Amino acid sequence: MTPYAAPVRDFRFVLEEVLEHGSLALPGFEEASPDLVEAVLEEAAKLAGDVWAPLNASGDRQGCTLRQDGSVNVPEGFIEAYQAYAEGGWNGIGVGEALGGQGLPEVVASSVQEMLHGANMALGLCPMLTAGAIEALAHHGSDAQKATYLPKLVEGTWTGTMNLTEPQAGSDLSKVRTRGVPQEDGSYRLFGQKIYITWGEHDAAENIIHLVLARTPDAPEGNKGISLFLVPKYLVIDDDGSLGERNDVTCASIEHKLGIHGSPTCTLSFGENEGAIGYLVGEEGRGLNHMFTMMNEARHKVGVQGIGVAERACQQAFAFALDRVQGKSPRSRGGRECTISDHLDVRRMLLSMRARTDALRALALFCAAQLDVARHAADESEREAAQAKVDVLIPVVKAFSTDQAVEIASLGVQVHGGMGFIEETGAAQLLRDARIAPIYEGTNGIQALDLAGRKLQRDGGAALAGLIDDVEGTARLLSETPELAALGEALAAGAADLTAVMAILLEQGSDPERGPDAIQAYATPFLSLAGHVLCAWQMGRAALAANTAQQTGSRPDPGRPDPFYAAKLQSADFVIRQWLPVGRAQRAVIEAGMASLAAFEPGSL
Amino acid sequence: MTPYAAPVRDFRFVLEEVLEHGSLALPGFEEASPDLVEAVLEEAAKLAGDVWAPLNASGDRQGCTLRQDGSVNVPEGFIEAYQAYAEGGWNGIGVGEALGGQGLPEVVASSVQEMLHGANMALGLCPMLTAGAIEALAHHGSDAQKATYLPKLVEGTWTGTMNLTEPQAGSDLSKVRTRGVPQEDGSYRLFGQKIYITWGEHDAAENIIHLVLARTPDAPEGNKGISLFLVPKYLVIDDDGSLGERNDVTCASIEHKLGIHGSPTCTLSFGENEGAIGYLVGEEGRGLNHMFTMMNEARHKVGVQGIGVAERACQQAFAFALDRVQGKSPRSRGGRECTISDHLDVRRMLLSMRARTDALRALALFCAAQLDVARHAADESEREAAQAKVDVLIPVVKAFSTDQAVEIASLGVQVHGGMGFIEETGAAQLLRDARIAPIYEGTNGIQALDLAGRKLQRDGGAALAGLIDDVEGTARLLSETPELAALGEALAAGAADLTAVMAILLEQGSDPERGPDAIQAYATPFLSLAGHVLCAWQMGRAALAANTAQQTGSRPDPGRPDPFYAAKLQSADFVIRQWLPVGRAQRAVIEAGMASLAAFEPGSL
Repeated sequence: MTPYAAPVRDFRFVLEEVLEHGSLALPGFEEASPDLVEAVLEEAAKLAGDVWAPLNASGDRQGCTLRQDGSVNVPEGFIEAYQAYAEGGWNGIGVGEALGGQGLPEVVASSVQEMLHGANMALGLCPMLTAGAIEALAHHGSDAQKATYLPKLVEGTWTGTMNLTEPQAGSDLSKVRTRGVPQEDGSYRLFGQKIYITWGEHDAAENIIHLVLARTPDAPEGNKGISLFLVPKYLVIDDDGSLGERNDVTCASIEHKLGIHGSPTCTLSFGENEGAIGYLVGEEGRGLNHMFTMMNEARHKVGVQGIGVAERACQQAFAFALDRVQGKSPRSRGGRECTISDHLDVRRMLLSMRARTDALRALALFCAAQLDVARHAADESEREAAQAKVDVLIPVVKAFSTDQAVEIASLGVQVHGGMGFIEETGAAQLLRDARIAPIYEGTNGIQALDLAGRKLQRDGGAALAGLIDDVEGTARLLSETPELAALGEALAAGAADLTAVMAILLEQGSDPERGPDAIQAYATPFLSLAGHVLCAWQMGRAALAANTAQQTGSRPDPGRPDPFYAAKLQSADFVIRQWLPVGRAQRAVIEAGMASLAAFEPGSL
Repeated sequence: MTPYAAPVRDFRFVLEEVLEHGSLALPGFEEASPDLVEAVLEEAAKLAGDVWAPLNASGDRQGCTLRQDGSVNVPEGFIEAYQAYAEGGWNGIGVGEALGGQGLPEVVASSVQEMLHGANMALGLCPMLTAGAIEALAHHGSDAQKATYLPKLVEGTWTGTMNLTEPQAGSDLSKVRTRGVPQEDGSYRLFGQKIYITWGEHDAAENIIHLVLARTPDAPEGNKGISLFLVPKYLVIDDDGSLGERNDVTCASIEHKLGIHGSPTCTLSFGENEGAIGYLVGEEGRGLNHMFTMMNEARHKVGVQGIGVAERACQQAFAFALDRVQGKSPRSRGGRECTISDHLDVRRMLLSMRARTDALRALALFCAAQLDVARHAADESEREAAQAKVDVLIPVVKAFSTDQAVEIASLGVQVHGGMGFIEETGAAQLLRDARIAPIYEGTNGIQALDLAGRKLQRDGGAALAGLIDDVEGTARLLSETPELAALGEALAAGAADLTAVMAILLEQGSDPERGPDAIQAYATPFLSLAGHVLCAWQMGRAALAANTAQQTGSRPDPGRPDPFYAAKLQSADFVIRQWLPVGRAQRAVIEAGMASLAAFEPGSL
């Protein structure tokens, strides 16, 4: 596997030139000066490139091991790499200062997350899950719970997990059977088995704080009977975090997976003996709601994770294609032996990988900036408007980024030819690792239903319509810029398709009889169209910024354009004129209707 | 991994109702009666389902082992399964009777190949490579070589390999360095190393016949200096095939690959001692041409292999989705607990997998039927016309089927949710296995260049235009059929796009200055569009046949339509109205031009 160099220049371009440092001006971010942000990105790039990235391939080869005593060993070097991360204070960069974090803007925290996942996705999952636990406790924990658990979680001395899935309860969590039985002292005893618990057991931290969905006795069936519990691996006996006995939760097995071998995916048994001691978090019966509070951000993080792997796949493919000599360039370009990057069909693959990754990153960071506004803007209506955009964007960032990441990683394998299929090269690992991202944290089908159903129907499409207005505004600006006019036209056409399809979704989706089926039938093509249009929009903004910079900025070499901006303009051109059309085809897919889908009986064959 | 049941009904539907047994009437196929064909398909289905398929998952887990003594052990059961295949006479079904085979039509042989690859792709590669060796020897070997080697290869007692790639010579075979040095007795001694040799060393057959590209001393540089040699693992000392000493060819290593673990991929060293004894096949200096003779068919076989894996991915996903209970159906359809196959977004994935697999199979079998005509028609002009179609279709069948197979297998993983990422389930293996098919036997990029370059330019698009005429004919028939009129319109639009894009390729491709770049730039989107249109065409024909059968045929249950035909009509509707539009977007991709691609400098970033 080739080394990983975090794309700091591109993060800075998006933050500074496309988003124009918008969120840094928000209240609460006074310390996040452009200089500080730059320093943070540079330091994170070092951690990612020098410490985490070199362990990615070896972690994949070694995987994790479940010992006889129930402990789980993670790959060599992972503990030290995790500790370097925690000791550097990285775990708290996006956490508010009130909770012991550094309270940096989400746009910065997201950039750092992308770097870490690009460097080593399997390891990146550990803090990602911890972040979810912090979020859930910060919102729903009691003051005492916050005081006891948050400091260690925020500094990263302890890690967190999310225990949702059971064999019969995957996308449908209403089927959870794990029981939480109240005790006289106010605590609970938990009994049951949870599967697919990421970093559920490991030796990289002093303690593990499990957040667990379980059902109290006599609770009603379905969603409303589910509560959220905190179950520490080691009981905490003191306010300063001193640890006592081992709790009754054990790792029964770890999974043999397609990828992310360095991340232990555990089956956890709660209460095989006296019952695992747990504490109710928030209100009884509101466990699912509490979990969903933090799910939005977790979904954004998974999208960002996909982009990180896509970026690394780009770097891997570019390095190979620029090195591999094979064939000759056409006579018009010299007719000499050349690297495969000189063949335009290979270059199409490379540009397609680069352009899509750029676009996904721009959209995810736009969404992160809206998250910052939603949390920090002084004006309530501004916060609400931003939150409405976030709600629409998150399922797109999660599902679209991860679907594309799989395709980009697969294209990376293809660029390598036969070498791509050989594990030592490293390209195949990226495909294997990426493949989980469309599945976990709510499958991409669930994301599409969230977008086409709840998010679109509840406000009659108002939030999405607002975003489409913004897309049209960018299209106009492009059209008014002579050298980018073709992009403006293409982007406007995409916006028109999305508007048309939204109308279909709203009309058919609100039909009391057929609505639920219509939403299901159209959800995935609808999300795909939205993803293409929104990514194209951000690349339209990027093109405007790059074009301005080309014309006004200083150049490293006065004789020729800055290659960064030139490449950005080529990326934007590719995204808007060669990738968006493929997404626009989803309009025809939806307009074809749902009759054949509804009539199709998979069981009849 | 769920069991594999060969789709005999669909093979029969395509052969009997879509292709209307066309090729069975050709001279030389007198014995291939419909009854015999049916019996062959049924027997092959048993071998595939009962013997080969159960070893697919265990073969993946065990993989192959290179022993200290240089021998390679294949997974448990593979030897017996291969022998059952050879003893059943399956190796010779597509080989002419003059060479000791059964001379069945290619449409039948292809159907059997798809079954075997669907059952166990890693094992299927062994006879696939042998078939290539048979083909090369049959066309270019001397009478003595044919007499010595063909009988054992045809019966499958010996297997064959293709030795092309060297570390510096992949897609560009002109860089081959392996040397073949003439000896006084007319034989040669070979020295050099070959990589990625499929089933290059194994213990499943008595002997292995390596066909090797190498360079004679004083041969000119480049393609014209390359000759084809036959190098047996054990020297053959007698006309009856008695084996003598071990030749100087050894397995230096086997690859650790993403998939097809049961297929040993070897690095072979020729001449580490006195030189490997080899025999010139065909003319000196014409090795590449001789190799390409059989490459066309090998490429068809790789396409078929992709379809086999896609079919198995369908079966695996359908079985899971019909079993997995999760969530409730909408109120309008009962509002009850249901399997995920009842959710329309899951059903979209299932129908998309099924419909695309049906379409790819129909196109591959159409191509096989044209191969039969090209070889067996009495009339020379008929043979030539069929061969012209075959030449255009083969790169499409290879590249489009395998690209789609990867997507279908990936969608199969997605249908499984979290279980798809767990290796034990079996869905992930299909994705890993499928991923090689777009790479080997000429990468899909090479296929696209073959189509857009040589195949299109040499006849000014005449052969493709002929196929488009046929597509338009089918579109008219659909349009004249009231219940299928919407399909006719959509198919005609696809044909128009392909015609328009072909004109661009011919105009820009013939430009002496920019032509080679234009062909490279547009090759992949062009092949994708052609693949979509041609597959949609075949499904249009399938819809016409299914519609006729619905209206005239007997029904298993008189109260409702035959579910096979109903599903086929839904497949056709999906392919033509929901899949073809995505392919049609490639016209816009090509019309966007090649400027940004040509300007993009991957090395500047």
